[in-house]
Amino acid sequence: MFHSSDDLRSNKISDYVKYLKLDTQIVLESGFKFDDCVIAYETYGQLNAEKNNAILICHAISGDSHVSKHDDTDADGWWDIMVGSGLYIDTNKYFVISSNILGGCMGTTGPNHINEKTGDYWGSDFPEISVSDMVLVQSKLIEYLEIDKLLCVIGGSLGAYQSIEWGVRFPDKLHSVISLAGGPRLTSQGIAFDIIGRNAIRRDPYFNDGQYYKQSEGPYTGLALARMLGHITYLSEESMSEKFDHDRYDPKDVDTDFEKEFSVGSYLAYQGDKFVERFDPNSYITLSNAMDKFDLGKNSSEISVNLTGKNLKWFLMSFTSDWLFPSSLSEELTRALIIAKEEVSYIEIPSNCGHDAFLLDDDIKYYGNYVNNFIENIANDVNVTKNQEYHPDRKISERQDYNIILEFLDNSKRIIDLGCGDGDLLYEIKKIGNANKILGIDNNLESLLNASKKGIPVLGLDLNNDLHLINDNQFDVAILSLTLQSIIEVETVLLEICRISSKVILSFPNFAYEPLRKMLYEEGRAPKHPGVLKYEWYNSPNKRYMSILDFEEFCKIKNFNIINSKFLNTLQNKFVSENYNFNADLGIFMISKDN
Amino acid sequence: MFHSSDDLRSNKISDYVKYLKLDTQIVLESGFKFDDCVIAYETYGQLNAEKNNAILICHAISGDSHVSKHDDTDADGWWDIMVGSGLYIDTNKYFVISSNILGGCMGTTGPNHINEKTGDYWGSDFPEISVSDMVLVQSKLIEYLEIDKLLCVIGGSLGAYQSIEWGVRFPDKLHSVISLAGGPRLTSQGIAFDIIGRNAIRRDPYFNDGQYYKQSEGPYTGLALARMLGHITYLSEESMSEKFDHDRYDPKDVDTDFEKEFSVGSYLAYQGDKFVERFDPNSYITLSNAMDKFDLGKNSSEISVNLTGKNLKWFLMSFTSDWLFPSSLSEELTRALIIAKEEVSYIEIPSNCGHDAFLLDDDIKYYGNYVNNFIENIANDVNVTKNQEYHPDRKISERQDYNIILEFLDNSKRIIDLGCGDGDLLYEIKKIGNANKILGIDNNLESLLNASKKGIPVLGLDLNNDLHLINDNQFDVAILSLTLQSIIEVETVLLEICRISSKVILSFPNFAYEPLRKMLYEEGRAPKHPGVLKYEWYNSPNKRYMSILDFEEFCKIKNFNIINSKFLNTLQNKFVSENYNFNADLGIFMISKDN
Repeated sequence: MFHSSDDLRSNKISDYVKYLKLDTQIVLESGFKFDDCVIAYETYGQLNAEKNNAILICHAISGDSHVSKHDDTDADGWWDIMVGSGLYIDTNKYFVISSNILGGCMGTTGPNHINEKTGDYWGSDFPEISVSDMVLVQSKLIEYLEIDKLLCVIGGSLGAYQSIEWGVRFPDKLHSVISLAGGPRLTSQGIAFDIIGRNAIRRDPYFNDGQYYKQSEGPYTGLALARMLGHITYLSEESMSEKFDHDRYDPKDVDTDFEKEFSVGSYLAYQGDKFVERFDPNSYITLSNAMDKFDLGKNSSEISVNLTGKNLKWFLMSFTSDWLFPSSLSEELTRALIIAKEEVSYIEIPSNCGHDAFLLDDDIKYYGNYVNNFIENIANDVNVTKNQEYHPDRKISERQDYNIILEFLDNSKRIIDLGCGDGDLLYEIKKIGNANKILGIDNNLESLLNASKKGIPVLGLDLNNDLHLINDNQFDVAILSLTLQSIIEVETVLLEICRISSKVILSFPNFAYEPLRKMLYEEGRAPKHPGVLKYEWYNSPNKRYMSILDFEEFCKIKNFNIINSKFLNTLQNKFVSENYNFNADLGIFMISKDN
Repeated sequence: MFHSSDDLRSNKISDYVKYLKLDTQIVLESGFKFDDCVIAYETYGQLNAEKNNAILICHAISGDSHVSKHDDTDADGWWDIMVGSGLYIDTNKYFVISSNILGGCMGTTGPNHINEKTGDYWGSDFPEISVSDMVLVQSKLIEYLEIDKLLCVIGGSLGAYQSIEWGVRFPDKLHSVISLAGGPRLTSQGIAFDIIGRNAIRRDPYFNDGQYYKQSEGPYTGLALARMLGHITYLSEESMSEKFDHDRYDPKDVDTDFEKEFSVGSYLAYQGDKFVERFDPNSYITLSNAMDKFDLGKNSSEISVNLTGKNLKWFLMSFTSDWLFPSSLSEELTRALIIAKEEVSYIEIPSNCGHDAFLLDDDIKYYGNYVNNFIENIANDVNVTKNQEYHPDRKISERQDYNIILEFLDNSKRIIDLGCGDGDLLYEIKKIGNANKILGIDNNLESLLNASKKGIPVLGLDLNNDLHLINDNQFDVAILSLTLQSIIEVETVLLEICRISSKVILSFPNFAYEPLRKMLYEEGRAPKHPGVLKYEWYNSPNKRYMSILDFEEFCKIKNFNIINSKFLNTLQNKFVSENYNFNADLGIFMISKDN
């Protein structure tokens, strides 16, 4: 049942696995020194002459170097849907590297290897390792491959920890980080599950203090229990219901000593038994312990200290139904990265698939395309590929408020667009080239995909509730174009915007524009008007109806300073200065708030 | 370490535990027959002469008969905060009964008892039991106590299952059911956790097929693992973070063989070790299995078949952070009870405490008071106590639309008030006495507490999103008073209301009332008006601004029939018929929708 590393090598996961025996000593965070470290790894695609097209993929706790099948006869990889010719991580363009992690049991040095000093299995003499130690070993592989700087390091779950740790420890050796279903640390609940898994292994009577390799039996019941438990945390309540609720008393006839009275029971038993055939209990303890101890800080300000001055581009993604790495963790990391002044994008992807979502094709149209857009733009920046010039679908001039907003912006350096949509305005601002920091916020993931394609950093947030993720005074100007009328908590949101930005430019429809006044007065009907006020009273996305005068009065009462204002009649395509609360259908203001 | 039932009796949970040996045979659902069933139980308070003040409390998986301490020298009970003199379940008024469940290990017949036929411990010969079997045994105790009809059966978790099963199996023997953190069945995720717990016990090498009572060691590691796991599911992610995040690497120095490297680790180890001292592994398997198999049906229509014709009053409560019995389960049961035409109240209580919330005092101001209001009203109905006559704080006549609504109601029998607030209007309708079915819906829990005190059945729902819980054609009239202007999806919500009710009476402010027209026309300002339109444009709870004419036009376009309408000038306190879209500030309509 058990596989020593030799067994694993004979029972190869793929013919394409290569082994590198390091000739340098590896010094762990704990001070422990490895003299005889072996790394099992695979590569895909070709390293270009400039050696600037390399992407490192980091695997999760039960993964390995075999990220994707190399050819038709090769075994399936764990991320075949993501990595390959013409796929989201395109092996025709990029040189992809993936290695088994330190402490694992798929070829890289781990507890089931022979300790050359003693001639016996490492077993529980294998030192406690950290995510940082895993990354150190990976960096030796990258050095061996003579790559100075990786285009990107990407991973999910424990792989996300590694990609983040790459940014923390070796910021000069990479351009960018992608974290899927990751965070700055586990929740206490997540750690608690891991502890039960480790207890199940360690208290298995066959554990023998980790020296079970020469026994006929090992702590396999314990490992299977740990795996069953892990498996529940990788799925979501919804996905388990979908899988099992339709016939919950119809278990599969699996050959197992575990309970199989319920459908979900035979499934868990099968998962547990199968895992034991390919995984080493000591590795499980070692890796889950490293996972539980990964901790960048208690809160975003502590975390930010570890992320300051890295000058990397970050893309974080979480999944709504992931309760092992809930979105709150990625949000905390996002907040920390903003404090650290790093360029960060963050998207929460709607998914029923739980933590495993990043391995499944259900939601890959989002996370795959975001990964692709991000990598393509990084590659473009470092000249691996030249993307085609972007041509906006909709002419910037069609939005009459945009030109005034651009005029108000003047030479502002740090600009956030709240409700950025497809990112047209920010792309225009980027082309003009005055700004050195731009960020788009929207809650429409399709729109944000378009914005990310244009190389705009984006946060998939709801501006009514999520601005707390951005710390104070991060921007010179915030833009709120044709959005104010849909905000319910007007004052609260404007105060939040003024907290993160020195100035705010806003455009909104004037509810006191002459034809609107007349419609209510003469017809006794809720006013409508071409443009943002074109909707019926019962189906309008607008919830606030104010005039230019109302807004000026609001600014006066609530102590917002009006720095600049212009008024438009968009139907006549002209500026209005006379009696603007009567003649203009659009107001554009630049305001600020004294602290 | 292990306690046989004799040990348990000597190591008594309380001197007040009484034992009843049944002289009748108990026939289980499975056909198995018990000849020698013992019930351990406790009682509190006095049974009155009419024997109509008895309340049965059912305990959760690890509970027992000791629900509350009987006096100062008695041991703490598991629900001391709920049950006692002057408390939410007042033992001065009510006769409270609580018994250990069949299959348990706290005195009632279970696997650790001697099977009188063999003279040996039952062990794994103990039959598989169901929640229905537990309830059957409880019914024998109630018969013995000469109580024909219980005022209420109440419980949380597995206790909720028992209280629900009482309603299903013995509807003539009780007036009402209260379910806290319950549902019609577990989720597949919940079952999965239980399976791992049972596997940990059964695969413990000391389990010995359940016959471990004469061994020096039993499957205590397995039981401890099961308990640790259970414990995580009883807490919430938030409550674990609150407990452990502030110092996650500072474990308590507990004496344990389990891992204790993390704070949460020493806590789990302690909980696991402590549980083993008081609980029997076979009981755990027996009870968790019964819990997993409780299943009233796959969906609300299947479930409703089991609940039809019971003629009981039901009160269900769930807790927002409870992920073992998520609110969706109580909602499904609520929907089924409505289909079954039972009188049901349902409240989702905001809580950070997870499944354990119903045992903790954090949220008792809600769930305790709801329990109290419900029981007091049932008691009033069956004349245990006579509540004081209710005097509304606010005169019904102060709401000028109410009298017209009452007039429109005419002799309607089934009435739902959407946005019922404190229940004043429904209480008035109840007093008038024409209706035989009333229900109030609101999302304000404080208001609903007031409504429940008046004996109004209430659902704590958001009428924008939750009306799907109510099946078609349940009501003759739905009331929507001064609420339409705050609804965003006007058409969708009105169609939903017309699905559940034949007619709808709605009152709303007229945005085309003369002074409002003038304000926009003459001043160029967003109109305001005393009453529901008194707010500023930026802080109004209103999101829709329509005139009476707009609404009439809407009904025409969308094919709603206007059955009746009246128009008020509330400032002048008079009806308006002439030019009402100009002169009235309030419109009241009765509409219907042809199918």
